[in-house]
Amino acid sequence: MFDILPLKGGLDNVDGFFSSGVSVGLKPNNKKDVAFIRSDALCDVGAIFTSNKFQAAPIRHFKRYGEIFQTNFILINSKNANAMTGKDGMDDIDEIFSYLPNSLNIKNPIMSSTGVIGYRLDTKKIAKSFELFDFNAKDSNAAAEAIMTTDRFKKEISVRVDVEGKGSFHIAAICKGAGMINPSLATMLCFIATDANIPKELIANLLKNAAEESFNAISVDGDTSTNDTVMLLSSAKSGVWDREAFSEALKFVTKHLALEIVRDGEGSKKVVAFEIKNAATVDEAKKAAKALSNSLLVKTAIFGEDPNWGRIASTIGASGITCEEDSLIIYYDDVLVYSPQKKQLDKESEYKANQVMKKESFKIVCDLGIGDASYTAYGCDLGHEYVSINADYRS
Amino acid sequence: MFDILPLKGGLDNVDGFFSSGVSVGLKPNNKKDVAFIRSDALCDVGAIFTSNKFQAAPIRHFKRYGEIFQTNFILINSKNANAMTGKDGMDDIDEIFSYLPNSLNIKNPIMSSTGVIGYRLDTKKIAKSFELFDFNAKDSNAAAEAIMTTDRFKKEISVRVDVEGKGSFHIAAICKGAGMINPSLATMLCFIATDANIPKELIANLLKNAAEESFNAISVDGDTSTNDTVMLLSSAKSGVWDREAFSEALKFVTKHLALEIVRDGEGSKKVVAFEIKNAATVDEAKKAAKALSNSLLVKTAIFGEDPNWGRIASTIGASGITCEEDSLIIYYDDVLVYSPQKKQLDKESEYKANQVMKKESFKIVCDLGIGDASYTAYGCDLGHEYVSINADYRS
Repeated sequence: MFDILPLKGGLDNVDGFFSSGVSVGLKPNNKKDVAFIRSDALCDVGAIFTSNKFQAAPIRHFKRYGEIFQTNFILINSKNANAMTGKDGMDDIDEIFSYLPNSLNIKNPIMSSTGVIGYRLDTKKIAKSFELFDFNAKDSNAAAEAIMTTDRFKKEISVRVDVEGKGSFHIAAICKGAGMINPSLATMLCFIATDANIPKELIANLLKNAAEESFNAISVDGDTSTNDTVMLLSSAKSGVWDREAFSEALKFVTKHLALEIVRDGEGSKKVVAFEIKNAATVDEAKKAAKALSNSLLVKTAIFGEDPNWGRIASTIGASGITCEEDSLIIYYDDVLVYSPQKKQLDKESEYKANQVMKKESFKIVCDLGIGDASYTAYGCDLGHEYVSINADYRS
Repeated sequence: MFDILPLKGGLDNVDGFFSSGVSVGLKPNNKKDVAFIRSDALCDVGAIFTSNKFQAAPIRHFKRYGEIFQTNFILINSKNANAMTGKDGMDDIDEIFSYLPNSLNIKNPIMSSTGVIGYRLDTKKIAKSFELFDFNAKDSNAAAEAIMTTDRFKKEISVRVDVEGKGSFHIAAICKGAGMINPSLATMLCFIATDANIPKELIANLLKNAAEESFNAISVDGDTSTNDTVMLLSSAKSGVWDREAFSEALKFVTKHLALEIVRDGEGSKKVVAFEIKNAATVDEAKKAAKALSNSLLVKTAIFGEDPNWGRIASTIGASGITCEEDSLIIYYDDVLVYSPQKKQLDKESEYKANQVMKKESFKIVCDLGIGDASYTAYGCDLGHEYVSINADYRS
């Protein structure tokens, strides 16, 4: 038995973790642009990175540490992705870390970047943050703010997990992401800290499973970035371990953040769950669900609050999965809009479906009637604001 | 030796073909909405249909005729796709054809539809067109107008092909398509008529090869419709056959129409050729080229005339093909924007690339430096008008 209890704030709730964010002038108007996360104990690390072939310099830098290592420091900058910068990009990271104060006893420092592709980092400017940081600050809020790019709001969460007869541990995270979010990760950064006593060999798998149902199920625009990173640092300080409790709590945390990212999808106003039921296989259910969450025609129809289920059917049909016109059923929340017996949308259903679509979040359920596998992907609408934000992101 | 000579107008130039379009009230404001194409000789037929699993009723109706058959009549309506209408949708087509005047001696009539999914055809209304048509009209222009949906302009073309020592034949076509256009066909209809004496067994392949380099290489929004159709009717009346000449002329015709569709991409202002060079295989080149032409971030950057080559690189990296940061070179027309030696865009190149992007059409060339395969896909920008058109298409 265990309980997951939401706490206010982010990383600050985890004992021994420090974080903050400052402005060094990468962003205009003195906006915060560099953050750190530090632990007073060495931490095991789990990480998932983008599937993009052109992985950014900080990811290649991380991989130099090898399969298993411990760290106590992460530095994060926004505004510049340090991607497509070749070996120079990795040298720049080393140069920045060479300015770290010795007094901190930092081991295997990690960097993470988000922003525009194709520009060298201003190493001196970023290193200036080391003079501005209070390395003993517990200011997760400032860190979450510093890693934002096109995000409209900060994203952080923390929970305490009480495990009967064993004690408590914490999981907390900060996260950024709004645009470019895609089926298999996208410019999103997520840093998770925990004091749970995770057995080293389980970290990678626990993180992977949680991401599959959260970050990998969201989609804002179908593009996959060069910098996506989900990282889990575990200090083991609580001494408490319960696999089921930790696994559940981690899923809770990552799912919450994933939905926050969708809700913040560039210029989006609605979060939609695309639920595929009774598909032949989970892979096919996933394929169809993601096709829906990525379809421009579906996304613009959601923006227009138009219960045009034909676009839903057409997208499923085009996704390459097993499906039949005679066994498909489509609902908007609980409003039936298509079934083999009810092929045309009557005025009443149209009105009801339109009311569903006016909500800030709703479900589009497609029962394929083929097998018994299911998958839910999350997406958002696409409106004029998306175009405005992305037509000239760099300026 | 042969010459391809463009002629003014569309289907009217092919001897023995008649066509026109009328308004029966499917579209508002007396806009033309039903068209016919008729031949006084029976024609062999080649056809390519959508890969969407939910093929519309007219496609399923066509397939009932079997592999090889001849026809002399096509009826086309806009505004209603007759898709997701089950067996009723096919019965409706049969009912409509039952009203055809016997005097026309019509054999194996074909129907084709485009418009909204999920509504039954108004059979009586459509059959009314048979009273309004002048079945001996040569009014390709009216037919091209009647098949338009969100198209901003009519699309037709015709050519005469002079083959040395053999004589002449004609190829002509009308076409519709703007939105929903995707890598592997999409709501686009194209009807091609010819008097070339094509050997029956070659029709399917000739059409397929021409489509591969034209309709299959264009992309407006990555969605594949339930109704896509490319059809070739051959009356053989000229008695002339030259495989090379016909093949070239057919590619000329289909490529012209495909580019017209891109140019008419819903709300688009620019046509962009995405050329992938020196890829490992043609499949990989195609995959990367289509990923570019479908990327929302690339399309919005083109709309914003922002030479943000990082999005080009990121999209190629995410497409799953073999590529390396150290061998990639990117050009906008002839302006070099990225190479391993020149990783940052200097002010001069940025200015020049921006000038290229101001043009109505330009090329983005990505040299992967891996193998020697290449492929060019065509796409367009995505701006506010796309959103406006698609947010509420049905009304």
